[in-house]
Amino acid sequence: MTQALARLPGLGPRSARRAVLHLIKKRETALVPLVAALQAVERNLVTCAVCGNVDTRDPCGVCTDPRRDTASLCVVEEVADLWALDRARLFAGRYHVLGGRLSALDGVRPEDLAVDALVARIAEGGFAEVVLAMNATLEGQTTMHYVAERLAGSGVRVMQLAQGLPVGGELDYLDEGTLALALRARRLVE
Amino acid sequence: MTQALARLPGLGPRSARRAVLHLIKKRETALVPLVAALQAVERNLVTCAVCGNVDTRDPCGVCTDPRRDTASLCVVEEVADLWALDRARLFAGRYHVLGGRLSALDGVRPEDLAVDALVARIAEGGFAEVVLAMNATLEGQTTMHYVAERLAGSGVRVMQLAQGLPVGGELDYLDEGTLALALRARRLVE
Ligand SMILES: [Zn+2]
Ligand SMILES: [Zn+2]
Repeated sequence: MTQALARLPGLGPRSARRAVLHLIKKRETALVPLVAALQAVERNLVTCAVCGNVDTRDPCGVCTDPRRDTASLCVVEEVADLWALDRARLFAGRYHVLGGRLSALDGVRPEDLAVDALVARIAEGGFAEVVLAMNATLEGQTTMHYVAERLAGSGVRVMQLAQGLPVGGELDYLDEGTLALALRARRLVE
Repeated sequence: MTQALARLPGLGPRSARRAVLHLIKKRETALVPLVAALQAVERNLVTCAVCGNVDTRDPCGVCTDPRRDTASLCVVEEVADLWALDRARLFAGRYHVLGGRLSALDGVRPEDLAVDALVARIAEGGFAEVVLAMNATLEGQTTMHYVAERLAGSGVRVMQLAQGLPVGGELDYLDEGTLALALRARRLVE
């Protein structure tokens, strides 16, 4: 159990051991309810056939939300990215989860990602804009350019996220790559 | 000496103590030459009257370098920012150091910064573009907008650094402010 907990993001081996001790001590009030809750979630979670999101229903809550902009589609690598962008409603359109990123190292090829499904979804019409919200990593950017190529000629505006200084970023602490990019993509002060 | 060393960026109290021990043990071969080198630097450093850079000569090496683009001026908060941008020659024009940032908290007002000098320098002519390379912090951005206002009507293009995802940035790990900004400033994939 300690090892399984230690694999959770943000929980090191030491805090995992503490958590296990707590769960064992409070068996009835902590361990039993936690197991039940996790089982319930595990039993009820499904992957949305439309967008690839993980939710308790299919189609998911995002796909069926009538208040969302149905003309704008945000493409992400993983479900975790969808959740990150949907926190605080940063993006109020629909999503498409690729299920990973192209990687020669990990042997991930285009056919391993939901790119064909994306192309088909766009071909159905209705979307005016696709935002390729890939990570600003090498593999993320490779994936972004591959997807952009696949969508060329589809008639939708294919957009990418802005790159540059992160909020709160201080020049003196940022890496050269980010500084170079922020300089190269400089724009007029509005 | 340990305290003075521990104040150096990147040197914690533990590594500072180790450094002090090393310097004391190797008095003749380590401590004496280090003191001499620091004294020489301290005696010879001057502030460039043109740009505010710190160098061993005035005007500084940047201001007198004939290979630099003399039509582009980069405005920074501190000398450390100039050095950060000049590492690896990210920016190959001239610089102007403001000497700080506007801050109600720290009581820094416009007249405490080298803004008048900047306006005068631009009025002399020769610059086609000014890049306001302020930190992406609240105070940095306030300063940027103040300087931009002061330069309005001067005839130069007033630019700002791009903001968005830093290089290597993963959506799942970035703060909401940066994600919101990267989405808002999204652009067409080229
Ligand atoms: Zn869905
Ligand atoms: Zn100078």
